[in-house]
Amino acid sequence: MNNFSHQQLRKIGRQIFTAGGASPDEAALVTDVLVDANLMGLDSHGIIRVVWYMDDLLNNKIQPGAPLTVSRESTTTAVLDGGGNFGAVAAMQAVNLAAEKAKQHHLGCTTVSNCHHMARLGAFAEVVARQHNMICLATASWSIAGHFVSPWGGREPRLTTNPFAYAIPTDHDPFILDMSTSAISEGKIRLFRNQGEELPDNFVLDAEGVVTRDPNDFYGPPGGTILPFGGVHGFKGFGLGMLVEVLSNTLSGHLATAENPYGQRACFLVIDPGQFAPPTEFKTAIEQLKSYIKSSAPAQGYDEVILPGEYHFRRKARREREGIPLDPETWDQIVETARRVGVEIDNTVED
Amino acid sequence: MNNFSHQQLRKIGRQIFTAGGASPDEAALVTDVLVDANLMGLDSHGIIRVVWYMDDLLNNKIQPGAPLTVSRESTTTAVLDGGGNFGAVAAMQAVNLAAEKAKQHHLGCTTVSNCHHMARLGAFAEVVARQHNMICLATASWSIAGHFVSPWGGREPRLTTNPFAYAIPTDHDPFILDMSTSAISEGKIRLFRNQGEELPDNFVLDAEGVVTRDPNDFYGPPGGTILPFGGVHGFKGFGLGMLVEVLSNTLSGHLATAENPYGQRACFLVIDPGQFAPPTEFKTAIEQLKSYIKSSAPAQGYDEVILPGEYHFRRKARREREGIPLDPETWDQIVETARRVGVEIDNTVED
Repeated sequence: MNNFSHQQLRKIGRQIFTAGGASPDEAALVTDVLVDANLMGLDSHGIIRVVWYMDDLLNNKIQPGAPLTVSRESTTTAVLDGGGNFGAVAAMQAVNLAAEKAKQHHLGCTTVSNCHHMARLGAFAEVVARQHNMICLATASWSIAGHFVSPWGGREPRLTTNPFAYAIPTDHDPFILDMSTSAISEGKIRLFRNQGEELPDNFVLDAEGVVTRDPNDFYGPPGGTILPFGGVHGFKGFGLGMLVEVLSNTLSGHLATAENPYGQRACFLVIDPGQFAPPTEFKTAIEQLKSYIKSSAPAQGYDEVILPGEYHFRRKARREREGIPLDPETWDQIVETARRVGVEIDNTVED
Repeated sequence: MNNFSHQQLRKIGRQIFTAGGASPDEAALVTDVLVDANLMGLDSHGIIRVVWYMDDLLNNKIQPGAPLTVSRESTTTAVLDGGGNFGAVAAMQAVNLAAEKAKQHHLGCTTVSNCHHMARLGAFAEVVARQHNMICLATASWSIAGHFVSPWGGREPRLTTNPFAYAIPTDHDPFILDMSTSAISEGKIRLFRNQGEELPDNFVLDAEGVVTRDPNDFYGPPGGTILPFGGVHGFKGFGLGMLVEVLSNTLSGHLATAENPYGQRACFLVIDPGQFAPPTEFKTAIEQLKSYIKSSAPAQGYDEVILPGEYHFRRKARREREGIPLDPETWDQIVETARRVGVEIDNTVED
């Protein structure tokens, strides 16, 4: 592992994406979503994604510069088409439109489809809490090519990891939950396989629909599926995954099995707390909830109670100081991707 | 166990509540929510609750006939006060107001507090899907007296079982999820204790914050707590429980530790799908999603994939034909409660 400053990774990401045809604004936005994920410790959604994104961009599977278009719109709602642009570009416009509508009409909800990978879903909810001081619920799913997750009681894949996220404003960092509704992601199963380790129980089914702890059973052939999260409560994970699918996709009239070369679709719902209580009362109540929750003595094996998102914000503060660790293989892939678009990476670069 | 027809239980419930001072409409609404829960197999939220409700009503802890009042209101939102009435009475008005606002402005959100127990939260979401053809998300929590659930990493109770429910309209029964965000309810721990059985793993902590399978450890003294649901993913259950708490309570400016003699508070959010796609397209997409999900071959130990709510609707159809089983102790309690308000129950009663 080598440590890289977030400024250095931001500079590299921007260079690569602009060399690939993205505008400076698009390149900055997409890079920032990725590098912020690294800072928060969510490395699977971090700068490593530059490799995939640029591969797709060079194969015409991302359309940088494509405008977001509005298919349907009302005072409080909108259905948006990302035009094949980067997912983060489409998502940021979609969530900001939902927030604008909520500012005027107290609630706002937008859906967006036909865009590439958004990376960390919580990033878009976070913007609403931090910049607009409102509550955001967000859901995202992927077209059939990403269906790895079985429905509860089934052994064939019918859903993606279908993440759900929310952000709730506080006087300091927002409360943020950013969770998949599946027991594990495909990327993490790969990690277990590569490290020769057994999976936890109730994460994966083999092709016969039997719970397995062998990551190879997922890959097959014949391949297995990922279970909804929740263990014995997996029906809850499945039920939440179905809600994510309906809001992100079905709500806008799209079929579950429709192919979409750009894959991602999402829903952003914004609630203005200012309509439910005077802002000072809401803030006071949130701060009091925070103190009350954190005042619980720790359970065995824990040092303290931490709030949704708190772990990741602490990680972010530390990595802003100490840097972001990347393994040599990841770094080589980024350097190689840069070379493909004529960007020479200077390892000594600092902002 | 004896079987009772749902008509018989409905008649008894109405008689008891009207004898206690509820209007015929209130008595019918509260009773129907309870008996429908029995029909769906959710007996802990069924007719047995008549005993508690009447006890509280006779002790002035329910105010039948109390009007719902509006504390704050906008075109899309409202904050409601149940006036101490039955929870079902307050919740039904609150969810219908959210639906009315969504009909006019495409989204609607209401919160309600200061009411007694609502029973099955999904009942109110279901009304939106069936009668208004819209999507409803619902959350509910209880004042500090109901705090039995520890935050993730903690050993002291800070939340209630904080249920989350949704209903999504289809051409037949809606998709319904109605789940607590905790691993188990207090009532079910009692059942394990009374039957001398061990709890599943990761459901309960003892007073020291150590996972225990002994239901007596929950009751103490010193007492333990219930874990958030999710097993190794309990941080997800906790995160969802926090969202439920914020929407149901904090959003309206209420403190986490505020005492409230009537206990229950909730939030209902309604989305009009008609603003996102033409109704026929949405219905087609929902039916196709339904078929696609159900087309998965079953996993080991399952006969088929069932949709959120499907199990309960099947149970309902069967119990409408075959009756609702009640144990003699429950029946005796209901008969005794009826006597307290001068209602003689005729066991042969049929509608």
